[in-house]
Amino acid sequence: MLTAAVSGDVFASPPVDSILAAIRAVTGTMGCLLIIKNYTGDRLNFGLAAEQAKSEGYKIEMVIVGDDCALPPPRGIAGRRGLAGTILVHKVAGAAADAGLSLADVAAEAKHASEAVGTMGVALSVCTLPGQVTSDRLGPEQIELGLGIHGEPGAAVVELQTVDVVVEHVLKQILSQETQYLPITRGSNAVLLINGLGATPVMELMIAARKAVPELQLEYGIAVDRVYTGTFMTSLDMAGLSITIMRSDENILQRLDAPTKAPAWPVGSEGNRPPAKFPVAVPPSPSMKDDEILSERQELSKQGCMLEAAIEAAAKELIDLKDNLNDWDSKVGDGDCGTTMYRGATAILEDMKTRYHLNDAAGTVNEIGSTIRKVMGGTSGILYDILCKAAYASLKQNKNITAYEWADALEASIAAVSKYGGARAGYRTMLDALIPASTVLKQSLKAGDDPVTAFIASAEAASAGAESTKQMQAKAGRSSYISPDHLVSIPDPGAMAAAAWYQAAALSVKNKLHASES
Amino acid sequence: MLTAAVSGDVFASPPVDSILAAIRAVTGTMGCLLIIKNYTGDRLNFGLAAEQAKSEGYKIEMVIVGDDCALPPPRGIAGRRGLAGTILVHKVAGAAADAGLSLADVAAEAKHASEAVGTMGVALSVCTLPGQVTSDRLGPEQIELGLGIHGEPGAAVVELQTVDVVVEHVLKQILSQETQYLPITRGSNAVLLINGLGATPVMELMIAARKAVPELQLEYGIAVDRVYTGTFMTSLDMAGLSITIMRSDENILQRLDAPTKAPAWPVGSEGNRPPAKFPVAVPPSPSMKDDEILSERQELSKQGCMLEAAIEAAAKELIDLKDNLNDWDSKVGDGDCGTTMYRGATAILEDMKTRYHLNDAAGTVNEIGSTIRKVMGGTSGILYDILCKAAYASLKQNKNITAYEWADALEASIAAVSKYGGARAGYRTMLDALIPASTVLKQSLKAGDDPVTAFIASAEAASAGAESTKQMQAKAGRSSYISPDHLVSIPDPGAMAAAAWYQAAALSVKNKLHASES
Repeated sequence: MLTAAVSGDVFASPPVDSILAAIRAVTGTMGCLLIIKNYTGDRLNFGLAAEQAKSEGYKIEMVIVGDDCALPPPRGIAGRRGLAGTILVHKVAGAAADAGLSLADVAAEAKHASEAVGTMGVALSVCTLPGQVTSDRLGPEQIELGLGIHGEPGAAVVELQTVDVVVEHVLKQILSQETQYLPITRGSNAVLLINGLGATPVMELMIAARKAVPELQLEYGIAVDRVYTGTFMTSLDMAGLSITIMRSDENILQRLDAPTKAPAWPVGSEGNRPPAKFPVAVPPSPSMKDDEILSERQELSKQGCMLEAAIEAAAKELIDLKDNLNDWDSKVGDGDCGTTMYRGATAILEDMKTRYHLNDAAGTVNEIGSTIRKVMGGTSGILYDILCKAAYASLKQNKNITAYEWADALEASIAAVSKYGGARAGYRTMLDALIPASTVLKQSLKAGDDPVTAFIASAEAASAGAESTKQMQAKAGRSSYISPDHLVSIPDPGAMAAAAWYQAAALSVKNKLHASES
Repeated sequence: MLTAAVSGDVFASPPVDSILAAIRAVTGTMGCLLIIKNYTGDRLNFGLAAEQAKSEGYKIEMVIVGDDCALPPPRGIAGRRGLAGTILVHKVAGAAADAGLSLADVAAEAKHASEAVGTMGVALSVCTLPGQVTSDRLGPEQIELGLGIHGEPGAAVVELQTVDVVVEHVLKQILSQETQYLPITRGSNAVLLINGLGATPVMELMIAARKAVPELQLEYGIAVDRVYTGTFMTSLDMAGLSITIMRSDENILQRLDAPTKAPAWPVGSEGNRPPAKFPVAVPPSPSMKDDEILSERQELSKQGCMLEAAIEAAAKELIDLKDNLNDWDSKVGDGDCGTTMYRGATAILEDMKTRYHLNDAAGTVNEIGSTIRKVMGGTSGILYDILCKAAYASLKQNKNITAYEWADALEASIAAVSKYGGARAGYRTMLDALIPASTVLKQSLKAGDDPVTAFIASAEAASAGAESTKQMQAKAGRSSYISPDHLVSIPDPGAMAAAAWYQAAALSVKNKLHASES
């Protein structure tokens, strides 16, 4: 974009000798184009430096940018101020030079760009000059319209208005048919630059862009070729923004799109792609059919009967355990563990009758997750939902679900809960029940035990694990804020709940099998 | 960088269904990598969405970034917060995906990057939650160290300190040998990201970068491969910044350097090129030799004598006219025109004896410019300096300087003053004397008049032009603020001064020539 930028003191033009030093430092045989913003000090200091450089044999051209559209055309020679539109002129000129054009041609492109660009600024606060007290000329509910970039007062102070109203007003000024500052009419192409003045969050610039793009397209009939949103030319820490519009054509777009090493130059979004609401495919998932109620009583398979019994036993156990869980939780947490579990368990019992396809074990587990998501809330709700989703994903890979698939599903669930929740064994969470259960289940099955024996053994491991939390220091959830002394002898209610429903399920499976065998 | 970003409410995790919709919308056969910052809500909601998506058949991986270095290693599972370092992880992962890597490999690169990055933030102000009153927890002379990105309080509140002290402290925390958060030691390579928190001007971020780069290089022995400075991850309108350091290697640099369409991704400056003070060649120019005093009395040529006479007459005329000029100026400007001209004229008379090489007309004009620059000041000083420089550049092209070359030089001077000053004929400036002078000089010479006749005719045109400013409305300088009624019958003092020295010079040349001929 630029080979050199010459800085003066804050808001002051750089001295002639600095400009001259820069020219001498960077100018090669092709010459040097000076791009300056239209302020008297800059014109004169750069002008003098240019003449001095010419007298030393350098080839120099100068383009002066005055893109301010806030004020009516000035009578005198002060002319319109240079504002953020200058950035676009820099980019066009830089790319033209990079393309190998002659100095005269680069200057011509820069001049052409400077005549096609208009800007207007809006400030919400006055900037702070280093070491000085900030001016209080702007009240908290006021904004300044049409300001420069050197902290000078704007053209008007008005009451705070919504972004949409401000953007509408600014665009009207820039594209005014009266001043005709810009050679832009209905049907023209343009690029839009939303520039932060120093202390404006990106989000607010985006809100302005969101209004400006459709306004230009729909109200003014202008095709917006590019949108640049960011902080490009500031007034120190001023809160506010400026809007710049530049008529674009193929050549200008080519210059703007050319790669640059300038760190702050953004990739321009294509403004002609309006924000789209595109349809998101919703894959068929039983859990999505929240409102579907099974039309007829299902004929349960032997597996389905067993699953029904297990779910019912597990849920009832949690319902029975409500007060104990609340009691433990009131000593180590916020006292609602039992109530939360109760809410989930009763909802599961209800939904089971009407919604769960119990012959489809994987689907049922998924539906349990959906029930939990609907009613349980809180961290435990989302963790149990994750547990069910992970188990479902594991189970559904198999056509035939045996004890081995259930063991894999338990392992996958535990991994998911640990991964997303961040807890591991010994953290005083439900995993302290489920991890031993999973380990023993796998070991027992591997050792050749029959599934029921393995399930029962694993349930005992779950209980033992839950009991062991009495000696653990909390590392997760609210319990982690409690002094360890208070926790001794009180088990983690989450672990106790997990062990309880797991054991109830195991026992019910054993009883069911026993009953059917006898 | 990213195919989708899922937004929640301000500072809240997005709902599971939003995340799921995003996954369904963008995930292809290669799968989907979720990159999340380490906050419980995000972990759980994204985790649940991931499990749900997996159960629908999507291939999903997740990488959790916790780059905060402000606090000692946490005991529990909350872990370190995700901060602006996540942006670098996005970039690495995005480039890896774009390079066609498998989901597992992309996830591995993202994880590797997340383990090599550390961040710490500093705030000067608390952010404003939309619709809420801003917290006053931070006094005007206080800063907050080690904050998150959701407006939560930082690790410590301390008194305001200079940027250098703050940057030193932050780097020390990030690179602490005690916590060993980063796998970075002396001799490592790293990239640096200076991130604005929403309302921090670019200039202030650059000031932090200016300290951080040499500090990393010289104090920590780290080679800084890239420096990214800008506003990448904000806390709404918080004033402050965060510093991120990521260990870099060839692969990471390749990912960071890969092109992206993400609008805010900057071109990384190469940090290993420290700010250089490079020598600027100073071309030989007589005007630069301010202190050189002619060693011996020069033997003047006929031309040199004439030039000496003209300069002396012109300067003396301005000295004589001092009070008149001040008088006119006090009615239309700030009343110092005569004094300013007097200052220039006396300095020229002084320097002429000791510094000007009068046999070199071009050089002498250049030296007059230097004298003026030294003593005159103000807009008129710089404009006269420009005038001299332009005349010098024009004259020095010729070996032999005749009246024609002087006429060309005058025309070039007027063009330069008009170009940089912005005035044209009729603007009530010195050009209203010089433009008619130039026109008549050229016409007269072209008509075949002898040089002295042409010079005298042109001087009369200058006087007439200066007188005509009495009827002109001011368009430049302070006079432009004065009501036209006040200006009638008062000439522009700048035009009068120009006409006066010009005419004095013309008359002296005539007399000198007359004297030498007789």
